[in-house]
Amino acid sequence: MNEPVTKELVIHKIKHNLRRLRTAIKWIIFSILSGLLIGMVGIAFYFGMTWVTDTRTAYPWLIFFLPLGGIMIILLYHLLHDEKDTGTNLVLSAIHSGDEIPLRMAPLIFISTLITHLFGGSAGREGAALQLGGSIGNSLGRLFRFDEKDKHIMIMCGMSAAFSALFGTPMAAAIFPLEVVSVGIMHYSALVPCVISALVAHGLALHFQIAPPSFAILDIPEFGISSAVTVTILAVLCALVSILFCISLHYSEAIYRKFIKNPYLRAAAGGCIIILLTLLVGNQDYNGTGVNIISKCFDGTVAPEAFLLKIIFTALTLGAGFKGGEIVPTFFIGASFGCLFGTLTGFSPTLCAAIGMAAIFCGVTNSPITSLLISFEMFGFAAMPFLLLAIAFSYMLSGYYGLYRSQKIMYSKFKTSYINKQTH
Amino acid sequence: MNEPVTKELVIHKIKHNLRRLRTAIKWIIFSILSGLLIGMVGIAFYFGMTWVTDTRTAYPWLIFFLPLGGIMIILLYHLLHDEKDTGTNLVLSAIHSGDEIPLRMAPLIFISTLITHLFGGSAGREGAALQLGGSIGNSLGRLFRFDEKDKHIMIMCGMSAAFSALFGTPMAAAIFPLEVVSVGIMHYSALVPCVISALVAHGLALHFQIAPPSFAILDIPEFGISSAVTVTILAVLCALVSILFCISLHYSEAIYRKFIKNPYLRAAAGGCIIILLTLLVGNQDYNGTGVNIISKCFDGTVAPEAFLLKIIFTALTLGAGFKGGEIVPTFFIGASFGCLFGTLTGFSPTLCAAIGMAAIFCGVTNSPITSLLISFEMFGFAAMPFLLLAIAFSYMLSGYYGLYRSQKIMYSKFKTSYINKQTH
Repeated sequence: MNEPVTKELVIHKIKHNLRRLRTAIKWIIFSILSGLLIGMVGIAFYFGMTWVTDTRTAYPWLIFFLPLGGIMIILLYHLLHDEKDTGTNLVLSAIHSGDEIPLRMAPLIFISTLITHLFGGSAGREGAALQLGGSIGNSLGRLFRFDEKDKHIMIMCGMSAAFSALFGTPMAAAIFPLEVVSVGIMHYSALVPCVISALVAHGLALHFQIAPPSFAILDIPEFGISSAVTVTILAVLCALVSILFCISLHYSEAIYRKFIKNPYLRAAAGGCIIILLTLLVGNQDYNGTGVNIISKCFDGTVAPEAFLLKIIFTALTLGAGFKGGEIVPTFFIGASFGCLFGTLTGFSPTLCAAIGMAAIFCGVTNSPITSLLISFEMFGFAAMPFLLLAIAFSYMLSGYYGLYRSQKIMYSKFKTSYINKQTH
Repeated sequence: MNEPVTKELVIHKIKHNLRRLRTAIKWIIFSILSGLLIGMVGIAFYFGMTWVTDTRTAYPWLIFFLPLGGIMIILLYHLLHDEKDTGTNLVLSAIHSGDEIPLRMAPLIFISTLITHLFGGSAGREGAALQLGGSIGNSLGRLFRFDEKDKHIMIMCGMSAAFSALFGTPMAAAIFPLEVVSVGIMHYSALVPCVISALVAHGLALHFQIAPPSFAILDIPEFGISSAVTVTILAVLCALVSILFCISLHYSEAIYRKFIKNPYLRAAAGGCIIILLTLLVGNQDYNGTGVNIISKCFDGTVAPEAFLLKIIFTALTLGAGFKGGEIVPTFFIGASFGCLFGTLTGFSPTLCAAIGMAAIFCGVTNSPITSLLISFEMFGFAAMPFLLLAIAFSYMLSGYYGLYRSQKIMYSKFKTSYINKQTH
């Protein structure tokens, strides 16, 4: 401000700002492109998912082919030379490193997730969304000869587009990639690209009549001391359930690997175990994503053991090598655990279901802002103080566990110290 | 996970988690305490502000004493040996350094802000809120013999409490201190303390019948390509207005200092200039906070020159040494500029007023998440996609300008590069 204003300075400033303007325009163009292209892929995947789920519901005997499905998935990854695939972990680590995400990840995760769901594996869809978006985004970046750092933004952009098209929550989709990779650092340089990409993909999804998710909280008590204490207790329990879920996922994989060295056998065995469990349970409530069960929790009905069974089904499915994601199961576990807590304590079961979803999402992703935003998109704004409180506690008390092993937590959850710790 | 489970390990884990539990309980207790104590101070300040504003409105001739008010403020700071006071900048820098915030900052800013407003200076209240909260929080930390890092959390906690009591927006109050200090780094270790503190202070404020702010957007057009383009243009203009406001504030101070060395004369001269301007304008719309004018923008009425006049009034008030803050003027400028844009383009003036407030708040604070959250608290959730888009663009294009000179922007707004740049 105190430099003398010379002609050179003015020219320099103008050039500098023109460069920034060019960058802004570049990102507007490429993020619209990414939103359109990856949004379309996400929409195709959405309809694929709807079709396989409807098919399995119509022909429940399809689950007997789950072991075969598992073998197909392993074979597919073998044929495309991607046995060492680390999935979403690779997408996250590519954002803070120079790792390349191969384009073949996209068709692989697309098909293998559909196989998992057609035959009744218990999994989510967001792993697919993030991998589809990340790998296509990365390839677009390569195609346009973007430098390393711009390619990172393209990856985030792609993640936003696919997440937004599939989940129908554009705001959370835009912020999630900025927040989740290195918790405590917000990659705001990708804010505009991710927002545009997410909004464009969401617009496309609406055009194809994909309805955004919406769960109505039937009864919101007044926020006061006693309701705040109740919600805090629920949040603490949710943090523990998050830890349990993360540990189950990781242990399940470790135990499978320890006892069955051959990946084909492992997937087949996993398939058999899921069939057995399904027969024991007597219905297919815990196979697939289970979105219908989440809706039931918002009517206030839930089986007390539902959250535990979903943890077991999901850990045994994904640990064996099936593909998908963990977020929809996370919502299932949260909604059913919350609803159970509400039923036992007599404190609005539907509010508790919403809080459970938000708090356990936060516990396993370590992303408080995204948790808050996705809650508003799913439940509306009326329960804000309850959600805010629960998410804060769940973040603090869920430890350094997480769904994604390449996620880093940059600052301690208890002190303002830099720790740069990998989640486990 | 692969360590052998020995007795020592189990004992270590238990001890470790008990320590964490103790930390959690410690923060619950101290954040409730901070919410209560600082919330009460914030409420007292709120009523003080209401009283001085009502008094000035009843006796408009009070503004002729503004030069005297300025002299009183300088004298007050001189008497309490705080001439070098850097206000909110010190509070922000204390969070990432070992700087102490003196307790006398609290009464000083309390009284001097009231003086500024009683005699019709144009300023806000959040500077007072952040300084009251920060200095009392810091003193509480010292009182309880907290270590350096815990004192930083106490400062943030105090800022949340005061902001929440005054503004009635607990969610934004809880997140603002985590986001604003080092943009790009989120101090999540203070999440639980800040959330509790903000909710407690908000509860107190509601108890004292302080109504949270609420501006109804009368007409929300459908979000589509043409409305998105319109909002993007508005957001780009808002980014430019943010830059203009920041430059005006800083230049005004520099010019005052250059031409008048004596601080008493400076304040008196500033007071005289504001009196002259008020007489020229012919009303007191631009004196004080101007909350009533913000409300008018939501009826769709605005004077075209309003935003420019508010920039001039505020820059000339604060630059001369008067105290207060910049956030309510920021909202005034945003609402009046947005409403003007809406009136000119025929695109929902009330929606544009809301977008203007959110986008210019983001432009001058560089805090996109807080901007989003405070928007939802003030306007509800219905205009979400417009707000999201506008905030993203305003963040990107407002450059490295900002209200607080001790704020740091850690990562480039255009690349994922670490820059650690002070705002100017």
